[in-house]
Amino acid sequence: MMDYLDLSDLSDERLEAVLALATRLEARPYGDALKGRTVGLLFMNPSVRTLASMQAAVTQQGGQTFVVTPGSGSWKMETRDGAVMDGEAAEHVREAIPVLAQYADLLGVRCFAEGKDLGTDLADGLIRTMADLCPKPFMNLESARAHPCQALADWKTLDDLTIPRKGGRFVLSWAWHPKALPYAVPASALEMAVRRGMDVTVLRPEGFALPAEVMDRARTIAARTGAHLRETSDRVEGMDGAHAVYVKSWAAPQFYGRPAEEAVLRAPLRDEWCVRESWFDVAERDAKFLHCLPVRRNVKVADEVLDGPRSAVIREAGNRMHVQKALLIELLGGHRR
Amino acid sequence: MMDYLDLSDLSDERLEAVLALATRLEARPYGDALKGRTVGLLFMNPSVRTLASMQAAVTQQGGQTFVVTPGSGSWKMETRDGAVMDGEAAEHVREAIPVLAQYADLLGVRCFAEGKDLGTDLADGLIRTMADLCPKPFMNLESARAHPCQALADWKTLDDLTIPRKGGRFVLSWAWHPKALPYAVPASALEMAVRRGMDVTVLRPEGFALPAEVMDRARTIAARTGAHLRETSDRVEGMDGAHAVYVKSWAAPQFYGRPAEEAVLRAPLRDEWCVRESWFDVAERDAKFLHCLPVRRNVKVADEVLDGPRSAVIREAGNRMHVQKALLIELLGGHRR
Amino acid sequence: MMDYLDLSDLSDERLEAVLALATRLEARPYGDALKGRTVGLLFMNPSVRTLASMQAAVTQQGGQTFVVTPGSGSWKMETRDGAVMDGEAAEHVREAIPVLAQYADLLGVRCFAEGKDLGTDLADGLIRTMADLCPKPFMNLESARAHPCQALADWKTLDDLTIPRKGGRFVLSWAWHPKALPYAVPASALEMAVRRGMDVTVLRPEGFALPAEVMDRARTIAARTGAHLRETSDRVEGMDGAHAVYVKSWAAPQFYGRPAEEAVLRAPLRDEWCVRESWFDVAERDAKFLHCLPVRRNVKVADEVLDGPRSAVIREAGNRMHVQKALLIELLGGHRR
Repeated sequence: MMDYLDLSDLSDERLEAVLALATRLEARPYGDALKGRTVGLLFMNPSVRTLASMQAAVTQQGGQTFVVTPGSGSWKMETRDGAVMDGEAAEHVREAIPVLAQYADLLGVRCFAEGKDLGTDLADGLIRTMADLCPKPFMNLESARAHPCQALADWKTLDDLTIPRKGGRFVLSWAWHPKALPYAVPASALEMAVRRGMDVTVLRPEGFALPAEVMDRARTIAARTGAHLRETSDRVEGMDGAHAVYVKSWAAPQFYGRPAEEAVLRAPLRDEWCVRESWFDVAERDAKFLHCLPVRRNVKVADEVLDGPRSAVIREAGNRMHVQKALLIELLGGHRR
Repeated sequence: MMDYLDLSDLSDERLEAVLALATRLEARPYGDALKGRTVGLLFMNPSVRTLASMQAAVTQQGGQTFVVTPGSGSWKMETRDGAVMDGEAAEHVREAIPVLAQYADLLGVRCFAEGKDLGTDLADGLIRTMADLCPKPFMNLESARAHPCQALADWKTLDDLTIPRKGGRFVLSWAWHPKALPYAVPASALEMAVRRGMDVTVLRPEGFALPAEVMDRARTIAARTGAHLRETSDRVEGMDGAHAVYVKSWAAPQFYGRPAEEAVLRAPLRDEWCVRESWFDVAERDAKFLHCLPVRRNVKVADEVLDGPRSAVIREAGNRMHVQKALLIELLGGHRR
Repeated sequence: MMDYLDLSDLSDERLEAVLALATRLEARPYGDALKGRTVGLLFMNPSVRTLASMQAAVTQQGGQTFVVTPGSGSWKMETRDGAVMDGEAAEHVREAIPVLAQYADLLGVRCFAEGKDLGTDLADGLIRTMADLCPKPFMNLESARAHPCQALADWKTLDDLTIPRKGGRFVLSWAWHPKALPYAVPASALEMAVRRGMDVTVLRPEGFALPAEVMDRARTIAARTGAHLRETSDRVEGMDGAHAVYVKSWAAPQFYGRPAEEAVLRAPLRDEWCVRESWFDVAERDAKFLHCLPVRRNVKVADEVLDGPRSAVIREAGNRMHVQKALLIELLGGHRR
């Protein structure tokens, strides 16, 4: 039994095995590897891809799912330890998780960053607490600091697109968004790219460097895998020779939890940091555009990019199902080869 | 591979085949004709019958489903081309549809009329765009101008009730409702009745004639099938000799998108246009009452009608599952006879 | 065919059979006893355990489910007879129940007390009306006055914990809660305990005696089974020698439907009526704490109790699935032994 909270929970060998299995499952989506297996899905936050792809992944392999959505048909849930629950939340995850685990063979849980305290969110303690509360295998469907199913899908997408591991140039670029968003996706994308051994650039405006903890962690992984990692706020320098440009918005760390103050820094960046086709002038000719979705059109990225040939976002989302299927089979140990 | 956007997407031969298969499936609901098939369901608007009957239809034939409900557990979705998405919607259907299609073998989508511009809604462009975005078979679960699964269920219901095709008198009657409702159901019911070759009357108050485009389309079909089609605002004339009375409310076309202005025209009709048992005095003795549901009791129709022997609304709703099962098997080509 | 509206719907013999089957199913959760069976679930109120455990129960035995949640993806529903539906509700249960019954082999429905009139809610007429409207077997998933699936799970939990039927001391204790809650759970827990033949004490502050109808019904059952039943507002007297303490909050009957007035009576009880470890000083050494969940931590019960060894709440919730599975098999008559 095992949990999947972060890409680092998979050894190199198991990661390769999951990717290889995902490719086989893409070719043959239906089977019975999850027959007699129930996967419970708890969504503390909205979802489209994860909700749909997890259900499809499980049922196409003969298993069954149930979905619990606090605040939308289910009781709102408290997550803080020691809380005096006289507010809106009727249920605590300390009960909900072990209860739901009894109806399932694996739980998948989505629980976004609270967005108040940077250290708390980067420690990703809540998803770890929930995994500890769960006596069954546990999958992180996006937590405060990690979206590891997305990272696996992104890895497979880069493989599918034959973007090289060694020497492949991966740009993780900030883009404008009306809200100060958490670090789960950029942290996981960065971890994925350095783990994959790529030549990685983080491109972001002044003031929007990723938190030191996120960069440090990436540097440690890079040191092991031989990846290169640099940061820049110069778009031409950042995009130069890129094979893959992964776009995401995130909060300015120094104003974390204070969105009104951050807005002053953020507002003037709107036009310049909407990804347009011209960004790719200095990239490789067929450089790809990646994004985890959902994406705000003509805010984070122009239609011309999303609807053009370099967009790989649909393939990325499709890979969510394939890698999750492989991962579920890996975690539940039920693959009949 | 085929889409089902409108009743006209079925040739006469296929329509009869679907109806015949639906009758066989009513007698034997369970089977494995959809084994190894996943149906994704996207509901941009509320649903009871469609939500439940689609899931039951798929799983009773061995397939699986997932449900995505933007705004209720899933991100709100933008539908306008070229939108600058800095508002509430986090995701665009241009991504959502092809993404979800990758997890499924068929998508079913509900997306009601926007209710702003009459021409736009009657062109039913949005559901066609979504079908175009979907590389898999696509089912319209109610769009701006069509509710073709309802139309099929209504056709089967008329057959079940042995109401004749030729010579059967079908009345489509307006009824009062607090809101200005779209044309999807009345347009599809009208198309169904003329396609079935019936003697059709549209009964509605002055000012509430169906849009010219809807009537013209019905007349064209009637010319082919030999149906008769007339309109009246005289209830006695309209109900005279009726075999089946199909009730629905709809907006006054001349005030489309301006509900406050329309309300002035609508308000005085409240009492007179609530269907009561006395309406049926001039109809055939065992004339049937049909309605797609949900229906506002004692607003559109009095309890005495709904709870009486002429109500066929439960059977109509039951037929939703049978015809959809048949249609899914037809679209997915997987029926093992 | 049979309905399950209340524990009294099971004869002694069938109740024992369901409990025995539940224990066997706990050991072997997967099977095909519900193959070719569809269970429709209608939730008029929020749910976590019932929603998840019903879906898991059905699908783990080879059946399928669909879920309809009025107000969250589905139309809001009217329940009052004769209502003039010009408000928010678009659909009446008089249509919804028979319609959904056509897509399923059994319906499970949750519909809480309205909380306005005591007599109306205690008569539990609405769930009986809904069962009458349903031509298929029907399960009460918590109504105005009964939560009979919970009662079955509680019975099994007491058996699992080897708390004796004869001579076992069962305390049903009131606890503070910010809202005036209905009687469904305490009434069903009380009925379960006296039906089980236990030595039962209802412990509650002055003014919070359970309604006379609830107590009378319990006394009638106790007379048949040999249970003892008493009431007290003295905590030490109530807890003395307890084997199991079942905690729930409920409204003061004399202020039913008038929460603002009741709040005056309720407010001063907050600290004293939060269950703490010290409550158990006079109980049996390993007395158990039971609660149906969800529970408001540090409001109804302190963390020290919930997180300590006497808490049986997780096991109780786990038993929900096992007993419901057994009950579904009993009601649908499909168990292949």
